[in-house]
Amino acid sequence: MSRKVRYGLIGGGRGAFIGAVHRIAAAMDGRIELVCAALSSDPEVSRASAADIMLPANRAYGSFAEMLERERALPVDQRMDFVAIATPNHVHFSAAKASLEAGFHVLSDKPATLNFDEAKSLREIVRKTGKLYGLTHNYTGYPLVKQAREMIRVGSLGKIRKVVVEYPQGWMATHLEAVGRMAWLSDPKKSGSGGVVGDIGTHAENLLEYVTGLRIVELAADATSYGQGRQMPDDVNVLVRLEGGAKGVLHASQISVGEENNLNIRVYGEKGGLEWHQREPNTLQVKHLDRPIELFRTGHGYLGAAAKRATRTPPAHPEGYLEAFANIYRNFSEHVLAVAEKSQPDPLALDYPSIDDAVRGMAFIEAVVKSSAANAAWTKLDA
Amino acid sequence: MSRKVRYGLIGGGRGAFIGAVHRIAAAMDGRIELVCAALSSDPEVSRASAADIMLPANRAYGSFAEMLERERALPVDQRMDFVAIATPNHVHFSAAKASLEAGFHVLSDKPATLNFDEAKSLREIVRKTGKLYGLTHNYTGYPLVKQAREMIRVGSLGKIRKVVVEYPQGWMATHLEAVGRMAWLSDPKKSGSGGVVGDIGTHAENLLEYVTGLRIVELAADATSYGQGRQMPDDVNVLVRLEGGAKGVLHASQISVGEENNLNIRVYGEKGGLEWHQREPNTLQVKHLDRPIELFRTGHGYLGAAAKRATRTPPAHPEGYLEAFANIYRNFSEHVLAVAEKSQPDPLALDYPSIDDAVRGMAFIEAVVKSSAANAAWTKLDA
Amino acid sequence: MSRKVRYGLIGGGRGAFIGAVHRIAAAMDGRIELVCAALSSDPEVSRASAADIMLPANRAYGSFAEMLERERALPVDQRMDFVAIATPNHVHFSAAKASLEAGFHVLSDKPATLNFDEAKSLREIVRKTGKLYGLTHNYTGYPLVKQAREMIRVGSLGKIRKVVVEYPQGWMATHLEAVGRMAWLSDPKKSGSGGVVGDIGTHAENLLEYVTGLRIVELAADATSYGQGRQMPDDVNVLVRLEGGAKGVLHASQISVGEENNLNIRVYGEKGGLEWHQREPNTLQVKHLDRPIELFRTGHGYLGAAAKRATRTPPAHPEGYLEAFANIYRNFSEHVLAVAEKSQPDPLALDYPSIDDAVRGMAFIEAVVKSSAANAAWTKLDA
Amino acid sequence: MSRKVRYGLIGGGRGAFIGAVHRIAAAMDGRIELVCAALSSDPEVSRASAADIMLPANRAYGSFAEMLERERALPVDQRMDFVAIATPNHVHFSAAKASLEAGFHVLSDKPATLNFDEAKSLREIVRKTGKLYGLTHNYTGYPLVKQAREMIRVGSLGKIRKVVVEYPQGWMATHLEAVGRMAWLSDPKKSGSGGVVGDIGTHAENLLEYVTGLRIVELAADATSYGQGRQMPDDVNVLVRLEGGAKGVLHASQISVGEENNLNIRVYGEKGGLEWHQREPNTLQVKHLDRPIELFRTGHGYLGAAAKRATRTPPAHPEGYLEAFANIYRNFSEHVLAVAEKSQPDPLALDYPSIDDAVRGMAFIEAVVKSSAANAAWTKLDA
Repeated sequence: MSRKVRYGLIGGGRGAFIGAVHRIAAAMDGRIELVCAALSSDPEVSRASAADIMLPANRAYGSFAEMLERERALPVDQRMDFVAIATPNHVHFSAAKASLEAGFHVLSDKPATLNFDEAKSLREIVRKTGKLYGLTHNYTGYPLVKQAREMIRVGSLGKIRKVVVEYPQGWMATHLEAVGRMAWLSDPKKSGSGGVVGDIGTHAENLLEYVTGLRIVELAADATSYGQGRQMPDDVNVLVRLEGGAKGVLHASQISVGEENNLNIRVYGEKGGLEWHQREPNTLQVKHLDRPIELFRTGHGYLGAAAKRATRTPPAHPEGYLEAFANIYRNFSEHVLAVAEKSQPDPLALDYPSIDDAVRGMAFIEAVVKSSAANAAWTKLDA
Repeated sequence: MSRKVRYGLIGGGRGAFIGAVHRIAAAMDGRIELVCAALSSDPEVSRASAADIMLPANRAYGSFAEMLERERALPVDQRMDFVAIATPNHVHFSAAKASLEAGFHVLSDKPATLNFDEAKSLREIVRKTGKLYGLTHNYTGYPLVKQAREMIRVGSLGKIRKVVVEYPQGWMATHLEAVGRMAWLSDPKKSGSGGVVGDIGTHAENLLEYVTGLRIVELAADATSYGQGRQMPDDVNVLVRLEGGAKGVLHASQISVGEENNLNIRVYGEKGGLEWHQREPNTLQVKHLDRPIELFRTGHGYLGAAAKRATRTPPAHPEGYLEAFANIYRNFSEHVLAVAEKSQPDPLALDYPSIDDAVRGMAFIEAVVKSSAANAAWTKLDA
Repeated sequence: MSRKVRYGLIGGGRGAFIGAVHRIAAAMDGRIELVCAALSSDPEVSRASAADIMLPANRAYGSFAEMLERERALPVDQRMDFVAIATPNHVHFSAAKASLEAGFHVLSDKPATLNFDEAKSLREIVRKTGKLYGLTHNYTGYPLVKQAREMIRVGSLGKIRKVVVEYPQGWMATHLEAVGRMAWLSDPKKSGSGGVVGDIGTHAENLLEYVTGLRIVELAADATSYGQGRQMPDDVNVLVRLEGGAKGVLHASQISVGEENNLNIRVYGEKGGLEWHQREPNTLQVKHLDRPIELFRTGHGYLGAAAKRATRTPPAHPEGYLEAFANIYRNFSEHVLAVAEKSQPDPLALDYPSIDDAVRGMAFIEAVVKSSAANAAWTKLDA
Repeated sequence: MSRKVRYGLIGGGRGAFIGAVHRIAAAMDGRIELVCAALSSDPEVSRASAADIMLPANRAYGSFAEMLERERALPVDQRMDFVAIATPNHVHFSAAKASLEAGFHVLSDKPATLNFDEAKSLREIVRKTGKLYGLTHNYTGYPLVKQAREMIRVGSLGKIRKVVVEYPQGWMATHLEAVGRMAWLSDPKKSGSGGVVGDIGTHAENLLEYVTGLRIVELAADATSYGQGRQMPDDVNVLVRLEGGAKGVLHASQISVGEENNLNIRVYGEKGGLEWHQREPNTLQVKHLDRPIELFRTGHGYLGAAAKRATRTPPAHPEGYLEAFANIYRNFSEHVLAVAEKSQPDPLALDYPSIDDAVRGMAFIEAVVKSSAANAAWTKLDA
């Protein structure tokens, strides 16, 4: 890269878990620079948070509107190249819309919007403005997730038959979400109506579609709210049917006591199978018809181009969540720079979750909520 | 025990996998004696098979009818105490019926019958004859499965909320079932209409109900036959709802390439969780709200009475499938002997799958087939 | 087999862990029959123990001397074919000697004798009498241990360079061995002077030599007794050098808190590596220079003849400690029968630990004790 | 922190694996800034490498001597605060010496010097200059390694008895080290005489002493060079004796085919045990006398202060090698800033490998080489 790519951060101020993750992911490779921020909807908190992270006071803004206006006024070689959005869910759409319309590329947290209609509007805005849009479905940043996708695409597994994807967590088994920084998650107005579906179910959906390259056609969902007085589901079990005839199971939970973020996926085709767990993200089990299971490991020479590009160290230096997140930032910002310099991006740099993934995610949430309300009736995803 | 318990074996002749398993399971503890057999529906094969296993020629019968008749004629202290049934599925009912009516206790392979109606008839016959009936749902014989059940029963997990139970296999990804000893499995007239549901789905169902102590109230099932020209499903995904409001997912597959017999279960309650895999059957993960996961291991002093009774060696001598199977034989035969001697059996000896489990299993198969035929409509289990 | 092989058991009466293991291992396949026993050095206990296991009173002997004498007097087709020895260590030699000299084959617990000199005498007796002698180094009975040996023998790993073999236990971290059935273990007169070395170190040594096919040439050992007042070592660390230039580490411990019987071995050659753990005995990791690690699993078609012969069930029915133990019994008794019938045994049936293994084991114990007493001086194994 | 800490990098230019690791580790938290560098001993390469990483040309120096001189001439608020050394081993000492004597704190790669004498000299220089010195024994940066240390320090395991520490790699099974960027590793003049001992054995030694808080008193080492024509050992097996009577085994290898960087440690005390593997660095097994094994996991509330401070994300976001490395940078730079600001550092910030660890490491290498040359004679570590 010929220069560092500059970004401004909306949300993610004091106490926010995900803001720190964004900053680390961006900083890691020394090629992306945080140049400004509107870290909180409270201007005081926003400025104090900026000081915490040693951002110059003159680019610590009191609101994202102010940030967009003031950055646009800067010379091209100083202003931010893109906006990263790390706010609670209900702000994602308005912040992305304003940023795109102000002429900035956007890298947003998921879910992209509060609902499916907003997502479709956002897609229109992306198309109209011609700006880049990326979504931090960070789990697709893992090297071996990319390997899995590549192996399926080239036919190593044959025609896909069955998929199992799970995202169990346990931290809401009691009422922790009501406390502190996570309070907004329990308010449907701020996090959307999906509860567990929007929070982590979409990660499972995105992982499934990313890895298999197949879309979910229809689903039958049974969502439940186990937490006393909780307004949104904290557990959901879904039957899915994919393009081409594959079927499967997707389930996500926030009340599975003792589970951390054990996102995992198994895919079976006519000729082979794959299994990946984020708990041990540097191992991919590859299963064969007549041979022993193989353990593919991050960093080795036998991996494909996408997995290699997503790896920073030689084999056996465990890479984790932050590196996977950084891979989203890396690809997106490389694309941003290519656009800025009117050059051709590396095709592998285009491998980050897009506005289409964003719309799929919201279609999924809506379908799950609708199916569950209809006693698990089969419901199409119309995106 | 005051004497060895004697049994006769129906089915399980030359080339049959499960016949050898029954004989090993019975022989292991030196307290159960194979005294006669009708090992095949072909009298020639039956006698040759008997010679293979060094059974005296005069008690190697040409048919189970002959076996029942001739054994009844023997003095009480010589005749078999019970019949073990290890035939293809379509013979289970008739063999069990004839044996019970001839006055013998029965330990049968699962599924108990070809269909739900037969199962209800069988229950009537068991009640009428007053004979004992056991079913070799062998996975419930594992010590740590018993531990899981006990912990849930005494409330260690609190009220149960979510269950995930899986039984993936891969051996029918291609067409192996058409070959040799497994040929009958692909014929609905011999194995029942459930395919994967009857063959292994019932093991998952039984494990779920055994461990949680909760019945499946209704289910929505999506079954598929992926194998070209195969008449019965080889993969099924099921949403389940249990007594008391718990929900979950059950799936079974015979086309999941690379999977062996990876039966496994996870249960989550308000206060804790449990996870067990038959692949490593001597470890039970116990999950807590605020403490590290604990690894319970077979043979330790901290386990409960049922787990201890089901263990033959001190900690860390891995016990496996055959020992679990033998535990079914051990409990059943101890009960048989108590009945013969009119003594009180150890309450723990009553812990083997019963005629009620048998009926539940057939109700499950029928409900899955029915639900799947109705596009995964919710279907009650009426047993 | 044309008939059941008959054996008599010395030792292993009431309360003895290993006696039950022997009986289960022998009984499992229905081809070996326990026909008589001298279960304890106390005639009362001996007879009571025989009743426990439903042995006919007339063949429950008060001493092994009586057993040998009375069995010899029986007709050939009734008398036992071989003697199994499951006594405390100090009886192994005299019982084996007497049995061999009385004309019976012997299958003995390890260590074969109390010391190296006795072992050499025993080898002479075996040679002189021409009777068969086997030793229950049961861990070599595991299918995948046999697979490892076979792969090394055919050169899959190339020339062997490094070996790591471990046998950590934790049960003597406090003073459990002083209690109950294990009391004799803490008495050097009854268990030999090696402590942990004789009890489990020899298993590690035998596994190493069995799998690699290479002998330990010399060793440097550092043994320690951590338990207060304990007379024999409960922990030992050993550097080993093998034939052909390979080197390695062997360590065994009974004070490694929390370890069960985690015997394990890793072998590295010029072209590949192998790793096996008895904790999960049905998986063998096979490591390559430029390819992913492969997981070999019990029961699959890609395994060699020795592994297949040692397996009772199709893939994924976990086989464990008792099955491995039974494999020693199976091979030994098949050899016994071939000798009785003057037929050619299956070459694979000769794969059981021999008198040479017995002598090697005692040489190992003696060398470790001697080296450790000399502050870990290099000491040759002269057997 | 009140401002970013500034550092200059010596070594780690184009193609160097470890240079990139240093830069990522420093950049990750947005609190440490790379302000200058002398990236190669070849001035051309040095400047080209600086351009690659977008370092301003005026602070891309042609040699470390130039860097030190020019940086000293800058105003205090612009010049670098510390020097990071990422060169081949033979430059470590001269670069550190020059930097310290020029008034800069030093964070150096390990091993600290080429030999033990240099290490003692370096310690004198550190003492004389009063500057800070840190060593990137990065594995001690893992949260659960810190947890292990803390648990042992507060007595959770009781008095320590046994330690097993291993560092197996396989990448030098063939002759990869002769190629490309690793060529210097095979030249004793550039990497020291220890081969595997200096390259990874010291990591094992440092991990052992860090976790247990006990020093190795003496050792007996058997080192071998298996690679044809290789001048330095590529495999070493060591018996160790620690302060207080604990004993153990340490082995390291670069010819263990199929192993990646599987550094691991097991520690057993009178009351408990611990086990940690860098392959799955977010799990610490905690072993008890009478209770199930517990799995401590990164990020949980039940962990101690040091582990918590070393963690960037909530539980179950796997943290890896780069985060561990970054923890060394974080603590060291926080200490640097406290010195600059004459404030009191957080006591937890002092937790990074020190000049004493550096001297211990070189004493260890020297003792291993000496012992091995004397056929594994016991050799004291006199540092």
